[in-house]
Amino acid sequence: MIHRSTVHEVLIAVFQVRAFSDPDAPELAVLLWQRALDPEAGTWSLPGGTLRDDENLAASARRQLAEKVDVRSVAHLEQLSVFSEPERVPGDRRIASTFLGLVPISAEPTLPTDTAWHPVSALPDMSFDHGTVVAHARHRLVAKLSYTNIGFALAPVDFAISSLREIYGAALGYQVDATNLQRVLSRRGVIEPTGRRAPSGKAGGRPPALFRFADNSIRVTDEFAALRPPQT
Amino acid sequence: MIHRSTVHEVLIAVFQVRAFSDPDAPELAVLLWQRALDPEAGTWSLPGGTLRDDENLAASARRQLAEKVDVRSVAHLEQLSVFSEPERVPGDRRIASTFLGLVPISAEPTLPTDTAWHPVSALPDMSFDHGTVVAHARHRLVAKLSYTNIGFALAPVDFAISSLREIYGAALGYQVDATNLQRVLSRRGVIEPTGRRAPSGKAGGRPPALFRFADNSIRVTDEFAALRPPQT
Repeated sequence: MIHRSTVHEVLIAVFQVRAFSDPDAPELAVLLWQRALDPEAGTWSLPGGTLRDDENLAASARRQLAEKVDVRSVAHLEQLSVFSEPERVPGDRRIASTFLGLVPISAEPTLPTDTAWHPVSALPDMSFDHGTVVAHARHRLVAKLSYTNIGFALAPVDFAISSLREIYGAALGYQVDATNLQRVLSRRGVIEPTGRRAPSGKAGGRPPALFRFADNSIRVTDEFAALRPPQT
Repeated sequence: MIHRSTVHEVLIAVFQVRAFSDPDAPELAVLLWQRALDPEAGTWSLPGGTLRDDENLAASARRQLAEKVDVRSVAHLEQLSVFSEPERVPGDRRIASTFLGLVPISAEPTLPTDTAWHPVSALPDMSFDHGTVVAHARHRLVAKLSYTNIGFALAPVDFAISSLREIYGAALGYQVDATNLQRVLSRRGVIEPTGRRAPSGKAGGRPPALFRFADNSIRVTDEFAALRPPQT
């Protein structure tokens, strides 16, 4: 084998639930930018790039994300898997540490002209293995929605349960029942009532109660009762 | 800053629940080898080493683990975080992808002379940041015990609940109630009765029922009922 240089890069899959064609049917979207230059000019890439000598991966992810989006709108950022297949890109070997980033539905960050949100269900022609990275990150998001409070980073500050149901449905890729969602998330202390009601109900009925997430950093919400550490 | 080369390495934290001084009080142990040469000669390191040009991280982890332990005894191996602080080791920059490995309590793999199990509660003088890697991996193991069936990789093929309680207690670092453990793990379909009983009870009483894990690969065991995909 010919010896090649190896560089380390970060790639960030930033998701937001957004309305595209139908304002009543929001979808999970991912932030992509279009390559102007070869290799693979015209294809769409995840934000990211080469790790600098003087930064760790998390700092690099934040720095490179800032080139594409206002990072203050990113409510959650965490490391996912490393993509390390020797031939994953042409030329020098590139080992990619991937990150998951989440933007609340209520944020509308300004984007550079080469950058846009795309529905995960209809990705454009993707660069290299970036489509696989998106699929992996979405899979992790779905898993984490089931055992953590990570929904806080997709939801607005306060919300009616019907809105939260749309957000979960878009992120999961299938519909969930609003009553079950409220019951399970309330019982686990993930969401709590704000004591206020929305200005008006969508259908003109009684204004719905508003809820909020109890925390705005990630935690496992369902430790087995039997496995909790002793209270001290 | 002086430009340095960057190499990528893997480090594997392999855990097993083992009895040390007290045969009735097994502890969580980690597999370490003692460095004969500088840097840091005499300190203890995790299995691992430099990624080769022609292998991905998972293949590298398996190859390097095989130098220290019979990998057939490793029932579970998964990627954890990347340690990427620029100055984490002297000399060339080394970016470390870390792995979690688990060996069932019933296995007694042969080890090279430089390699030994150490209780996590009393680690020897550790090389570089390897002590931090062990702490991080243990933290992830504890979390995963709460929302997955990962205990399968620490337990023997079949076991009395009293034995499983000792294994969970050692891995978690605090005691759990045997009745709760059986109820929660049974309800979630993590463990199931084998229909057989142990040859004899420890205290000479009625032989205890034997259980087994329902699966021998990892899965999330507690997706919210409300968040499960529709059955098709």
